[in-house]
Amino acid sequence: MRVPVIGIMGSSRPSPRHLTLARDLGRRIAEAGWILLTGGRNTGIMEAASAGAKEIPGSLTLGILPDCISEVSLYVDVAVFTDLGSARNNVNVLTSDVVVACGVEGPGTASEVALALKAGKPVVLLASHEAAERFFKGLAPRHVTAVPDVDQALAAIRAALAAPTRET
Amino acid sequence: MRVPVIGIMGSSRPSPRHLTLARDLGRRIAEAGWILLTGGRNTGIMEAASAGAKEIPGSLTLGILPDCISEVSLYVDVAVFTDLGSARNNVNVLTSDVVVACGVEGPGTASEVALALKAGKPVVLLASHEAAERFFKGLAPRHVTAVPDVDQALAAIRAALAAPTRET
Amino acid sequence: MRVPVIGIMGSSRPSPRHLTLARDLGRRIAEAGWILLTGGRNTGIMEAASAGAKEIPGSLTLGILPDCISEVSLYVDVAVFTDLGSARNNVNVLTSDVVVACGVEGPGTASEVALALKAGKPVVLLASHEAAERFFKGLAPRHVTAVPDVDQALAAIRAALAAPTRET
Amino acid sequence: MRVPVIGIMGSSRPSPRHLTLARDLGRRIAEAGWILLTGGRNTGIMEAASAGAKEIPGSLTLGILPDCISEVSLYVDVAVFTDLGSARNNVNVLTSDVVVACGVEGPGTASEVALALKAGKPVVLLASHEAAERFFKGLAPRHVTAVPDVDQALAAIRAALAAPTRET
Repeated sequence: MRVPVIGIMGSSRPSPRHLTLARDLGRRIAEAGWILLTGGRNTGIMEAASAGAKEIPGSLTLGILPDCISEVSLYVDVAVFTDLGSARNNVNVLTSDVVVACGVEGPGTASEVALALKAGKPVVLLASHEAAERFFKGLAPRHVTAVPDVDQALAAIRAALAAPTRET
Repeated sequence: MRVPVIGIMGSSRPSPRHLTLARDLGRRIAEAGWILLTGGRNTGIMEAASAGAKEIPGSLTLGILPDCISEVSLYVDVAVFTDLGSARNNVNVLTSDVVVACGVEGPGTASEVALALKAGKPVVLLASHEAAERFFKGLAPRHVTAVPDVDQALAAIRAALAAPTRET
Repeated sequence: MRVPVIGIMGSSRPSPRHLTLARDLGRRIAEAGWILLTGGRNTGIMEAASAGAKEIPGSLTLGILPDCISEVSLYVDVAVFTDLGSARNNVNVLTSDVVVACGVEGPGTASEVALALKAGKPVVLLASHEAAERFFKGLAPRHVTAVPDVDQALAAIRAALAAPTRET
Repeated sequence: MRVPVIGIMGSSRPSPRHLTLARDLGRRIAEAGWILLTGGRNTGIMEAASAGAKEIPGSLTLGILPDCISEVSLYVDVAVFTDLGSARNNVNVLTSDVVVACGVEGPGTASEVALALKAGKPVVLLASHEAAERFFKGLAPRHVTAVPDVDQALAAIRAALAAPTRET
């Protein structure tokens, strides 16, 4: 049985609030023993989540990079170089058992949420905004959970991993 | 100077209203002398838009397929087989000079709108709904135009093609 | 019934001899009424083959580009922008009914021949060299035809298109 | 400094000899402390190499899958689901610091060697055959090393990792 992979998606230039949430959630994911997946670059939500996870000894962080020239976060243990541009966003969500969007602040994150729903993946919207929640819940009500904080994000991830419909 | 490529995106199981709009818009795009791009399958918005375009002699329809097993629309002149799954959605939007979403009824179309905005492409939302318009306009106000009918969609396409910022 | 698509693959910095062959073969493919597919850039075999095809009125040339920054050949009618890097080579071969390698002078062309054989496509090696012919015929004897000139390349393309095993 | 990733490529239906070599090489790669990358499926060279690596406590195996339906090897710790078909072969080679082909028995492996050379990666041909060695050395003499056994494969990997020209 492979260890679950939890993806954290978000902006490369997020608000300070989302940066703090990403770091906390990354650490909590590592504490739970799960693998953290991000877009792998050394900026924004990707960097913060990976840094949080690496506070925990024995953690494993996976970064799926869009190209071969972006700088890789120092907190990424395994870097996968796709050279697919934004098409790599689909690899991110297919590889994640649960996709968490830490804010939906730009079109890149929006594409990842949409691709995740297209693939039937459970999506957690953490500290999102009302327009995003309404739109995505309208698209796939049973696959989207909106939560305000890291504790509830963890609970939503656990619920998604435990669901009998989870594809394995 | 290459002929502009106009992409029409939409559900494979759309409402009857969007089906009619897609057929009309496909025909109008062909009448304007532009190339029509769709996802290439023989169903839904893809099929309707391609069929509309092929009512016009001399039209050219391009279909970008997700795999090598889906049935190709009989109204597609040039079929590009990507075998990329949903990652082909990024090829669709990068190849389109303007992206028109004919309804935003599912996550696949939502991913194409988001990927188009990520790539800086002009997006026209045709007969969309309020939640989609508010969400995507919030992400990229200057790149999204919402229109209620085919006449206004044509006008928005013309405006986007004429914009000095258009990448060529 | 869609018009067959014939792909011509080859180096971006080919020998003068292969350049002449590509131009001749591109023209002959257009004369036959087929669509010409290349990698779409304005250099080497891609440019020469597309230029040859555009000598014929009514011809149609398709270019599948690896990224969004390479210059597109002026002889490409329909440009598909993949932003997939070398992964676009698989799109080229899947979209071609027959793949012609005009010389196998570099690893890019070699990858396209190998991917074509992996996909079960008929491959014509035009003016290749002995090491390439021996290697690829060893991999897939029934799918590889080596020919010395454009006349025989045309004959091999016709034979492949007529084969009952052709996937349609 | 990230741990080096060594890719082992090869047939899904290899000869018994190559199967044994893949298992030995996988174990040796894990003993060296490197991450093993394969195509991730539960068959052939992929399965054997991953199984060999997992004989070593603390080893890490990465599998890059072509789709979401193939069965994943039980010996893969981290599975990346690309849904890219054969285009995922380019992800495999870009993610590997050194690419080892354990036999070149089919077009899939040939495409990975060619794509690796296109990307400028060092390639080790282990227990290959003369036609493959001559062809690939002809394409990129300085990037291809042919070796007969696992000891020499290890030495070639070490040399490639130590080379000053290694991209990092």
